Amino acid sequence: MTSFAAWAKHAQERTEAALARYLPASTIAPVRLHEAMRYVSLGGGKRIRPMLAFAAGEAVGSHPGQVEPAACAVELIHVYSLTHDDLPCMDDDDLRRGKPTCHVHYDQATALLVGDALQSLAFELLAAPGTHPDPATQVEMLHLLAHAAGSRGMCGGQAVDLASTGKQLGLAELEFMHIHKTGALIRAAVLLGALAGGRLEQSARAKLEHYAKCIGLAFQVMDDVLDAEASTATLGKTAGKDAAQGKATYLTLMSTKDARAYTQELVDDALAAAGHFGARGERLADIARFIVERSY
Amino acid sequence: MTSFAAWAKHAQERTEAALARYLPASTIAPVRLHEAMRYVSLGGGKRIRPMLAFAAGEAVGSHPGQVEPAACAVELIHVYSLTHDDLPCMDDDDLRRGKPTCHVHYDQATALLVGDALQSLAFELLAAPGTHPDPATQVEMLHLLAHAAGSRGMCGGQAVDLASTGKQLGLAELEFMHIHKTGALIRAAVLLGALAGGRLEQSARAKLEHYAKCIGLAFQVMDDVLDAEASTATLGKTAGKDAAQGKATYLTLMSTKDARAYTQELVDDALAAAGHFGARGERLADIARFIVERSY
Repeated sequence: MTSFAAWAKHAQERTEAALARYLPASTIAPVRLHEAMRYVSLGGGKRIRPMLAFAAGEAVGSHPGQVEPAACAVELIHVYSLTHDDLPCMDDDDLRRGKPTCHVHYDQATALLVGDALQSLAFELLAAPGTHPDPATQVEMLHLLAHAAGSRGMCGGQAVDLASTGKQLGLAELEFMHIHKTGALIRAAVLLGALAGGRLEQSARAKLEHYAKCIGLAFQVMDDVLDAEASTATLGKTAGKDAAQGKATYLTLMSTKDARAYTQELVDDALAAAGHFGARGERLADIARFIVERSY
Repeated sequence: MTSFAAWAKHAQERTEAALARYLPASTIAPVRLHEAMRYVSLGGGKRIRPMLAFAAGEAVGSHPGQVEPAACAVELIHVYSLTHDDLPCMDDDDLRRGKPTCHVHYDQATALLVGDALQSLAFELLAAPGTHPDPATQVEMLHLLAHAAGSRGMCGGQAVDLASTGKQLGLAELEFMHIHKTGALIRAAVLLGALAGGRLEQSARAKLEHYAKCIGLAFQVMDDVLDAEASTATLGKTAGKDAAQGKATYLTLMSTKDARAYTQELVDDALAAAGHFGARGERLADIARFIVERSY
């Protein structure tokens, strides 16, 4: 068995190559839009969501090739949300993945259209003919992703985040926000990865749901810790921004030490759920461990 | 047989009622986002795209109830695009359907999220369980809508429109833009309406494609004529804006008289295509006629 580092690198390269194939070439009209879509989607990113999709696929015995469209669809939703988030009317950020953000490198109207078009592309590739042997499961996957991306998922979390700026949130409210803002798409990545190979048994699905919920929260707590501790150079995005903008974070509710302990607790729970899949769940476990150990 | 006016009113009311059901209630969190989604989607609009879906459904013998999700999905994509179009970084418009635009009534960040969430909702409702008896056709419909909405459809047309502001376009370039910007979604409305009842024969599909292409262009030519001639009160949006912004329109390439004659020619072509469906194609014909006769 290869090391997790080698596996992760392979998953990232597979994602990059597949996205490069799925995204319209920058020679196709409208050229500037397609170039900008490739600018924000390619050449960077941790690719955590695709990794989760591939790992969940492995857990139920699917081939990575079957998981590719689902992995890329979830990543495109993530990339579109970052592109819109960075706009001046939202977080107003100039730097993303170590590069100027889309509206800085191009312009605001282009960044708006890039995000819109990437969302469509996510559904287009997941609905492409031959993506899944069973159309009924394919429809289920499309429904799951659309729900996760929408107002009762990611977009809803963004709205709560916006409304909470400058306010003191309690732990329950903060978790409500994160379960929607990042948790919904992480859950979609895990479930879509597992569904990509075929139908999913109820017990396996319940374990994957629990795994996703735990690592989604753990990831967010660590994000707050890293945002407070790391430098802009290490993160590849502006550090310390959340606190500066008066956004509620876990660190307004607990110490860094407690936040790290909370992360460990969530990760232990996720590891137990991954254990349900035996040796095939090893990559899910690796990703859970990576979340507490990462420094960016 | 009821009059077209009565049929159209019924189709509009059916669309309004279905959208009111599909949109999350404004009592569900996040309340402000859901309220804003309902603000832009309900209580107005010509509902041309849903009407086209219902008419295409009738042409192939489907029940309107079967067509409802497709009709609403296309309309939600349309409404999201209007909401983003009106933003200051795009057309910067204050008035839409006789009401303040979303970013004026709420704020820019909310308008951005409203558009994003409406796009997700369009795919969510089209992918909902039980929407179509045949999952393979349902997947085809999802693929068709996603492609029509994306960078090689509506978003691509927007990008060309943006790039062409202040430039003199030829007729071929202008039609390329419109075929993408409005034509792609009109085509989707017609095809989805027809597919909603079952599979579609190749000959019927070809006729519907031709019908959609003709009325899509006719609609756009008339839009330019009306934008130049009508008043803001009649249109329910700012009149004369295209010319003021230096946007290419048909009237920069031909006289109003020639534009009206061109519309008539396109509509005659559409009527011939609708004739393929005999009496069942009557509503498609009515809509084509309505396009040249409308005043708003």
